[in-house]
Amino acid sequence: MRHILVFTLAAILCLTACKTPNEIEQEYGDAARQIIEMAENNSLVWDRLTYLTDYYPRRLSGSQMLEDAIDWSVEKLNEDGFEVSTQDVMVPHWVRGHEYATLLSPDQRNMPMLGLGGSIGTGGSPMTGEVLVVSGFDELEERAAEAEGKIVLFNYEYENYGQAVQYRVHAATRAAAHGAKAALIRSVTDFSMQTPHTGGMRYGEDVEKIPAAAITVEDAAWMHRMAKRGETIEVELYMEAEMLPDALSRNVIAELRGSEKPDEIVLIGCHIDSWDVGHGAMDDAGGCLVTWEAMRIIKELGLEPRRTIRLVLFTNEENGVRGGLEYRNKVMANGEIENHVLAFEVDFGVFTPLGFGYTGPESAFPVLEDIASLLEPIGAVTVREGSSGTVDVGPLNREGVAIMGLDVDVERYFWYHHTHADAMEILDKQEVQHCTAAVAVMTYIVADLPYRIDWIE
Amino acid sequence: MRHILVFTLAAILCLTACKTPNEIEQEYGDAARQIIEMAENNSLVWDRLTYLTDYYPRRLSGSQMLEDAIDWSVEKLNEDGFEVSTQDVMVPHWVRGHEYATLLSPDQRNMPMLGLGGSIGTGGSPMTGEVLVVSGFDELEERAAEAEGKIVLFNYEYENYGQAVQYRVHAATRAAAHGAKAALIRSVTDFSMQTPHTGGMRYGEDVEKIPAAAITVEDAAWMHRMAKRGETIEVELYMEAEMLPDALSRNVIAELRGSEKPDEIVLIGCHIDSWDVGHGAMDDAGGCLVTWEAMRIIKELGLEPRRTIRLVLFTNEENGVRGGLEYRNKVMANGEIENHVLAFEVDFGVFTPLGFGYTGPESAFPVLEDIASLLEPIGAVTVREGSSGTVDVGPLNREGVAIMGLDVDVERYFWYHHTHADAMEILDKQEVQHCTAAVAVMTYIVADLPYRIDWIE
Repeated sequence: MRHILVFTLAAILCLTACKTPNEIEQEYGDAARQIIEMAENNSLVWDRLTYLTDYYPRRLSGSQMLEDAIDWSVEKLNEDGFEVSTQDVMVPHWVRGHEYATLLSPDQRNMPMLGLGGSIGTGGSPMTGEVLVVSGFDELEERAAEAEGKIVLFNYEYENYGQAVQYRVHAATRAAAHGAKAALIRSVTDFSMQTPHTGGMRYGEDVEKIPAAAITVEDAAWMHRMAKRGETIEVELYMEAEMLPDALSRNVIAELRGSEKPDEIVLIGCHIDSWDVGHGAMDDAGGCLVTWEAMRIIKELGLEPRRTIRLVLFTNEENGVRGGLEYRNKVMANGEIENHVLAFEVDFGVFTPLGFGYTGPESAFPVLEDIASLLEPIGAVTVREGSSGTVDVGPLNREGVAIMGLDVDVERYFWYHHTHADAMEILDKQEVQHCTAAVAVMTYIVADLPYRIDWIE
Repeated sequence: MRHILVFTLAAILCLTACKTPNEIEQEYGDAARQIIEMAENNSLVWDRLTYLTDYYPRRLSGSQMLEDAIDWSVEKLNEDGFEVSTQDVMVPHWVRGHEYATLLSPDQRNMPMLGLGGSIGTGGSPMTGEVLVVSGFDELEERAAEAEGKIVLFNYEYENYGQAVQYRVHAATRAAAHGAKAALIRSVTDFSMQTPHTGGMRYGEDVEKIPAAAITVEDAAWMHRMAKRGETIEVELYMEAEMLPDALSRNVIAELRGSEKPDEIVLIGCHIDSWDVGHGAMDDAGGCLVTWEAMRIIKELGLEPRRTIRLVLFTNEENGVRGGLEYRNKVMANGEIENHVLAFEVDFGVFTPLGFGYTGPESAFPVLEDIASLLEPIGAVTVREGSSGTVDVGPLNREGVAIMGLDVDVERYFWYHHTHADAMEILDKQEVQHCTAAVAVMTYIVADLPYRIDWIE
């Protein structure tokens, strides 16, 4: 039934030389099988991912570590025989410095914490303050009169990332509006092993800047219970965090030139920067090595797609998206933006791949689904509307470029997100290989189809 | 078929007035239902567990926190109307003090660590040393000549707790035998979020005492990879740990006196001490509140078991078992040991209860299985040979007393074991209530049966 519908739709809608689903299978089935086999029997992606994260952890924008990781990537991409270039990008340069939070009362203990990216510090000396614990923005408004001069802790109930991240981004602004001197948040996660999570925050325009940090779920819940029992909670907070002048970083661009339509571009990418804690293995070294390896496998197999495959390792996704914005600006300035057939980013973990999210013309779905069906051996067969982990290609999408994300099993993604625990030990070699296969099959076929996937009418 | 067999066995074997399985259901089915209902609709166990862990975390032997927790327990047990006494116990008094491990080369970063309980410190100043990474005791023997003056890291492959804990206990002794100046181990766990795990260690008799600490799975694996690449690894280790003179602690004993055979004792228990990190919520405040609440429910329901139910909150399970040994010594000295029908300890987590482990005369199994079948509504129906989480009643068992442990879903038990993450947030209220029901039903029936469960012949 589905095939009949797809066939009919294809027959009616395809004004260009688009193929019926059966033709996708006939044309690309062998290539897909070769790609999957090479991905499954190849340790390079795992070995390079291990090397990158072992030698270049904590790749925050402005750090030498990030630039070293970029240099290493350029060197290895050249060794692979790609055409490689870099694109200068001025990036925010926030530094954490030394920081700590100590519970002074009603218990005395060190509390695991991470200052939020973009926060100011405590002015060179520790700040001691009473803590006002609220369950969210609403309770803060109700108890606004109590906030003056206090450290406000938001121990909201976690519903999902989108809801919880509002506290990370806006806690300082909301607390400062009522005279608080610092803001603490329960870490943005649904699981904790006394694990603080950093991430970006912003200051509103009309309020005083105050320090903002995340503590653990456990400590936030404990303080909330203690506050409800009438205990006075006192904390010492010390943060050396500061924003330095913008620093020079780079996007890395490597190409496998198209055999027939080299001007048309299928972009695949990731972000090479990470937060300054942990190894940034899943966020997003994994995405970088998976997309890179996908392009390398296509090349090694001697497949010669009609269009150019362009790998972009974006800089500064985590605290600025300056890499994604600069890339967009450049391709708009040089007239290349119209040539982008698809921008496919992998930045939502490299766990078991499930399929693809797509934000672009709906007419592409039948063909994308037929491509995905070639990934049945590894289970990455779904194609849905909307895409996750596509922050860097967001600026392109806002200019009309179709974008795609890799959907994976994200059950544990937010456990590790922006923590010290984002390391190789959370990843699995076969899962990474399967992500590579999924990206390679999708990318190769979209790059090779006789028609543009985004121009099916 | 099973019932016929059980009936036949019971008819043949029961020389005392033991009942057939159907009679267990007939006699105790109503009581079991009442117990389960009260356990499921009662927040007291959860509220007290929260209170105990919130106000008295880090209950290591020798600490004021442990003694405060004991005082609170005595007070609340008295409020519940039980006959309460304490039993003095001299316990080891190890203190951690300040400690840290810093990676100096080939990366520079702080490494989460926990000194192992019983370890000496680094002699008042930081110790800097090159790290020899080995995969286990065997590789250490092969590379013994390289160990002199080094810090030996055991990055063994985790198979199970029993295997892995050998490294925690013996790493220092084995490394010192070859002239190492400190020993590090990969934390004893099958899952890590940069989480170090403490736990007890011992020094062998004929070797120098050297400091011993656990680092995280991630850091141990990273160092191992780096060592295999030929990198020289250097670490700074600082530990103030020391063993002070033995301190005075107490076992807490509370009784619900038997209505017909008050001298016969069904012991239920747990350990009130914990490690000096985290809140000791699952290890073992949960076991304490579950057994305590089981006894309280039996009392509140007006059930009057023939035998005495004796709750023992043992002290010093974690680093000495002095509470369990002292209790054994006392009941041997006063002739009570023969009166112990069963010693049932809960110290393997208070997650979803699955059933019971039993180490005692085999003839008890049919009856125990029939009792467990009354717990079908909450799923705790299995009875197996052998028992887990029964360290404190081990000394009794070695004198012939039958012992029992509560089997629970331990999938995540070792994730949190002896870590900062052992806090209320890892527990679930309903699971704790179900553990309470399981303990209460088993305890009440064993205490009330017309015959001793350990004397079925």
